[in-house]
Amino acid sequence: MSLFIFSAKIFSPLSPENGGDIKTVTVRTPATVANMVCGFDVLGFAVEAPYDTMELSRKDQPGLTIIHEDSYGLSCDPTGNVAGVALLSLLEDAGLKETGLELRINKQIKPGSGVGSSAASAAGAVVAANILLQQSYQNDELVRFAMNGEKLASGVKHADNIAPCIYGGITLIRSIFPLDIVSLPAPDLYVTIVHPQIEVRTSDARSILKQHILLKDAIRQWGNIAGLVAGLMKGDHTLIGRSLEDVLIEPVRSILIPGFDTVKKKSIEAGALGGGISGSGPSIFMLSSEHLTAQRVEQEMRVIYTAMGLDHHTYVTRICSKGIRVTIQ
Amino acid sequence: MSLFIFSAKIFSPLSPENGGDIKTVTVRTPATVANMVCGFDVLGFAVEAPYDTMELSRKDQPGLTIIHEDSYGLSCDPTGNVAGVALLSLLEDAGLKETGLELRINKQIKPGSGVGSSAASAAGAVVAANILLQQSYQNDELVRFAMNGEKLASGVKHADNIAPCIYGGITLIRSIFPLDIVSLPAPDLYVTIVHPQIEVRTSDARSILKQHILLKDAIRQWGNIAGLVAGLMKGDHTLIGRSLEDVLIEPVRSILIPGFDTVKKKSIEAGALGGGISGSGPSIFMLSSEHLTAQRVEQEMRVIYTAMGLDHHTYVTRICSKGIRVTIQ
Repeated sequence: MSLFIFSAKIFSPLSPENGGDIKTVTVRTPATVANMVCGFDVLGFAVEAPYDTMELSRKDQPGLTIIHEDSYGLSCDPTGNVAGVALLSLLEDAGLKETGLELRINKQIKPGSGVGSSAASAAGAVVAANILLQQSYQNDELVRFAMNGEKLASGVKHADNIAPCIYGGITLIRSIFPLDIVSLPAPDLYVTIVHPQIEVRTSDARSILKQHILLKDAIRQWGNIAGLVAGLMKGDHTLIGRSLEDVLIEPVRSILIPGFDTVKKKSIEAGALGGGISGSGPSIFMLSSEHLTAQRVEQEMRVIYTAMGLDHHTYVTRICSKGIRVTIQ
Repeated sequence: MSLFIFSAKIFSPLSPENGGDIKTVTVRTPATVANMVCGFDVLGFAVEAPYDTMELSRKDQPGLTIIHEDSYGLSCDPTGNVAGVALLSLLEDAGLKETGLELRINKQIKPGSGVGSSAASAAGAVVAANILLQQSYQNDELVRFAMNGEKLASGVKHADNIAPCIYGGITLIRSIFPLDIVSLPAPDLYVTIVHPQIEVRTSDARSILKQHILLKDAIRQWGNIAGLVAGLMKGDHTLIGRSLEDVLIEPVRSILIPGFDTVKKKSIEAGALGGGISGSGPSIFMLSSEHLTAQRVEQEMRVIYTAMGLDHHTYVTRICSKGIRVTIQ
């Protein structure tokens, strides 16, 4: 039995002629950080850890069966599961609704943590199906299918977790209608994430936002996002750091996250370039140039939440340039 | 007598030891396009033409004398002339207020045309003085001095014409307080500019802007500016074209410029990547990948304004990567 490991972005589907009798596709789908500070709704990136594992296989009986091997209690009804909804939209488009499929999901990315748990499920399912069913959907089409899963999870068809999950690295959603995804280079940065174990509902995080803003604040924000993109493309870490400023969203949303201001202050004192809320929270991420700095930042985060008596998880990881990793059997 | 020609950005002041007995510095200061579509207030670029010529010399009597060799009727009182005000602020900082200087200005960039006429005067004066007086101010410090000239011209200390004039190419003003200028690479693009001979006062163009905007429009704008910066840095002309969209300023300001919508539509039909209002108008600029396309765009602009019976000037030029050119005598 042959075994292939490659990232989704370089996949070229196997035809039956070249040994494409695929039984099972296993995918490792990374967590993602959306709303990258000044890049609210448009910039996101994938990280090496945590990640989910999903296994998609053919079965004899028609229809989609979902099995959760984790303990998060998510629905196994395909129409009530983000991976299921994403997969069904691909099957419908491909005219393969009657195909017998079994999807085993082992989530490591905790739902509601703000690091793209639903995106990982939705993106992983469609990437796996594209290979197992020998379809040739391009990455932007896979993003479109997976966005249906995001709509189920949060009520909004957003792509800023899905896109970095599938493309890897850092992605810009220049426009959602029409969908225009721009891959940016992934700089050699370390990421520290803390997930304080509180619930911030995406709907609450959305409703708290001000829908009318000042032009002068918007100008400051787009100066920063332009600086951030330039910094990412130049590999200029100090420019990245200076540009990691959000004058619009963070001041409003951070009040939902206990300890946010202290985490940010202490992380920057420990040498982080900067960071902010991951997605709509409650996770907080910080970027650092050095591994040791990222570890010092993790230590500061632990001290803060331990002192507050709040359970928390931390990760020290890197920006994941590859996106979803695929194994074929 | 030796003669040196170089751009301001590579200038290293001559010391008396290496032949630095400088009598006259002549500068060629380019026109600039600020408010680059979605980059309102933050992105600008320099063009090869038109440009002003200025000559700064020492004179025996203390004080600054300004002579205009053009016919625009601008004030020759140093405190009422943008070049004078900029120059005086440098002299004050350097403790050289009593130095005898003569500044001859030959403007080719028509005041009020929207392509950085005042910035060219202010920037040219301080770049010339930095060399003539053997000071070693850095480019960002020269921008600060020159911004005093912009304040005299428009009431606002903005840097989005000054910075590309001095640095050359495309510049991002990530932040104005504190001043943070980021040089972006100048892609190999042709620029067509039309200046319809009407007056749009900067103060009118400012007062017409809405100070409160919708968050969703701002998000679209910062998706576009991020795309534009990525496109400029990748040299991806189609991405540049897709990102040249302004949903906030152009719809409001363009009503002050007769023929704007037609010029834009016909230019894009003729093959331009996109464009918009230059500065606060009335000039309109369009970017093209090919010289021939830029010439076709020029032809369309002429046809439109001739049909409207409006006098106009056009330029087909390129993005000027060098900024101010200096000749020393």
